[in-house]
Amino acid sequence: MSEIANIWPAPGTPLTQLLTPLPVIDEARMAANIARAQAHMDSLGRAFRPHIKTHKLPQVARAQVEAGAVGINCQKVTEAEVFAEAGFDDILITYNILGTARLARLKALNTKVGHLSVTADSSEVVAGLAATFGAEEPLTVLVECDTGGKRCGVQTPEAAAALAGEIAAAEGLRFGGLMTYPAPGGAAAVEGFVTGAKALLYAAGLDCPVVTVGGTPDFYAAGDIPSATEHRAGTYVYNDRAMVRAGHASLDDCAMHILVTVVSRPTPDRAVIDAGSKALTSDLLGFEDHGLVVEYPGARITGLSEEHGVVDLSGIAGDGPKVGDVLRIVPNHTCVVTNLFDRMVFHDGAAVTRVLEVAARGTVW
Amino acid sequence: MSEIANIWPAPGTPLTQLLTPLPVIDEARMAANIARAQAHMDSLGRAFRPHIKTHKLPQVARAQVEAGAVGINCQKVTEAEVFAEAGFDDILITYNILGTARLARLKALNTKVGHLSVTADSSEVVAGLAATFGAEEPLTVLVECDTGGKRCGVQTPEAAAALAGEIAAAEGLRFGGLMTYPAPGGAAAVEGFVTGAKALLYAAGLDCPVVTVGGTPDFYAAGDIPSATEHRAGTYVYNDRAMVRAGHASLDDCAMHILVTVVSRPTPDRAVIDAGSKALTSDLLGFEDHGLVVEYPGARITGLSEEHGVVDLSGIAGDGPKVGDVLRIVPNHTCVVTNLFDRMVFHDGAAVTRVLEVAARGTVW
Repeated sequence: MSEIANIWPAPGTPLTQLLTPLPVIDEARMAANIARAQAHMDSLGRAFRPHIKTHKLPQVARAQVEAGAVGINCQKVTEAEVFAEAGFDDILITYNILGTARLARLKALNTKVGHLSVTADSSEVVAGLAATFGAEEPLTVLVECDTGGKRCGVQTPEAAAALAGEIAAAEGLRFGGLMTYPAPGGAAAVEGFVTGAKALLYAAGLDCPVVTVGGTPDFYAAGDIPSATEHRAGTYVYNDRAMVRAGHASLDDCAMHILVTVVSRPTPDRAVIDAGSKALTSDLLGFEDHGLVVEYPGARITGLSEEHGVVDLSGIAGDGPKVGDVLRIVPNHTCVVTNLFDRMVFHDGAAVTRVLEVAARGTVW
Repeated sequence: MSEIANIWPAPGTPLTQLLTPLPVIDEARMAANIARAQAHMDSLGRAFRPHIKTHKLPQVARAQVEAGAVGINCQKVTEAEVFAEAGFDDILITYNILGTARLARLKALNTKVGHLSVTADSSEVVAGLAATFGAEEPLTVLVECDTGGKRCGVQTPEAAAALAGEIAAAEGLRFGGLMTYPAPGGAAAVEGFVTGAKALLYAAGLDCPVVTVGGTPDFYAAGDIPSATEHRAGTYVYNDRAMVRAGHASLDDCAMHILVTVVSRPTPDRAVIDAGSKALTSDLLGFEDHGLVVEYPGARITGLSEEHGVVDLSGIAGDGPKVGDVLRIVPNHTCVVTNLFDRMVFHDGAAVTRVLEVAARGTVW
């Protein structure tokens, strides 16, 4: 693969000379996204913990921490290992960690990382953690609460308090607080759940140092959850078409574009681009088409095969793009595009600034 | 990443000890799929050219060629480079190759590979190829025809014959024949198009040595296109849920499973697995859910976030899986799962047999 790796562009390469399909990141837009989000959380007096799932790049996480983030959020032990190796010392893994092999790795990680915490939503998960960690190097565990997102999480404040008690009773665990990923517009539900759980925790003599909530779509409504002490978000760093729809960002805040080439114009109404599901992914996120074509907003990417995207041009004025034209696509969902490419190319609007290995891509456990 | 790479399992590791989420390939099922497909094409007297997009593994392509395949089919120049480096000498790239940098790489590849061919569906593409190749090392070019698939391809037999003439007139190009990717059930349309185009080609004094068609869903109906000389197919090697629905394979012919762990049972009707869109992909291929749970066929994977899959258990009898249980998922679409993982784990039903680097993953141009 060494020969192929060499075709990644060098810094200074004009954008017009890049091979496609290729996701590229606008440095200035990303920096503005980081600064704007941090300023908002600072104005609320709330801790901000970016989720690295969107970029999987230690260099970008470093910029987020330097802007004021308290630490980072990972979803996997292996992701956290990559960031620990890069020197990050405050990592929350918002996941139920299960199984002997993974727990052993988590224990080694806890020795390396100063402030490591995980979440749990069942007695089974707490039991595994309790059997792994000891009093000499305890692990901080938060209780995950389902406040309407209908994914993981205990279902009631009573269940949250009971599980917190199990954590607190384990010699090698410390109860760290409550974690939830709210449903869209779910601030009131979060606030109700958390208020109820905290009352039960206090009654049981347990402190609740952290209430961590999250999400980019409701980022600017974070003040509607006054009980939260911390916000987690990932997508805001690049933004994407779904975040524009959610009102979180404008098209000009979208830092990631997929550069694509028109490889066929078989009919007046049809163009075919060299990006399919292996470049754009099939994530629809409620959209009916597969990304926004910046140069032709009326065009619709109606179908993806693995290496082709079929574009319906019937909604545009004029002749549309020619074979060989390079277009920019704002993806429906930026985080899954990151997961497809070994390196990420950054630019200043005219030329490549840096090419970074996506260090935490391919970390699957 | 070296530390993390070390957690890929060694040959002999029992399947029960594998970390999840993880795609695994059943060696015996894959071997049977390769043998059965080749036997069918042999019985038709038709050349068979497997598409490597499904596995991206030179070792598997070698098994396909040893079974009798005439060569391989790639979709990208960089994929073909990986397979050329592995010694493959008959490669068809079914893609419009455009742009100075990519054409230069294609020219280098043509020097290395004994039998390299590409496709074209426009004068623009042929002009780029013609400007790149010379008489000393000519390139074989097939005309891509749209026979109802509505992706790339010339629209009429007349256009096919005209483009073939442009290819034949270029000093550095050789007209190699016709290529199409038929629509499902599109045999009659292919036959009509090809018959018409061949008549025009012969009238113009052009031979048409190859008519290459493709697809796994209609694989066993390949005899309905008597004018075809060659069949291309990728998915048949692993098979997936979409191929079972198409009638191409049974569930027992599906060689790829995604091993997943139940990480949460928040409600009686809901399980959450540790595989989301970054393991299963969001490819629906017409399904309404995200894969088949082998152990609980009545369960439905109704939602994917990046690292979680939400499973609706309301359709099953009994209590369903427990936290920590490992399940097997037959993915909707196997080819896109391959594209997510750096290595592929093979097994004999009980233990790991080999772990192969997915050599052509991450080749994007």
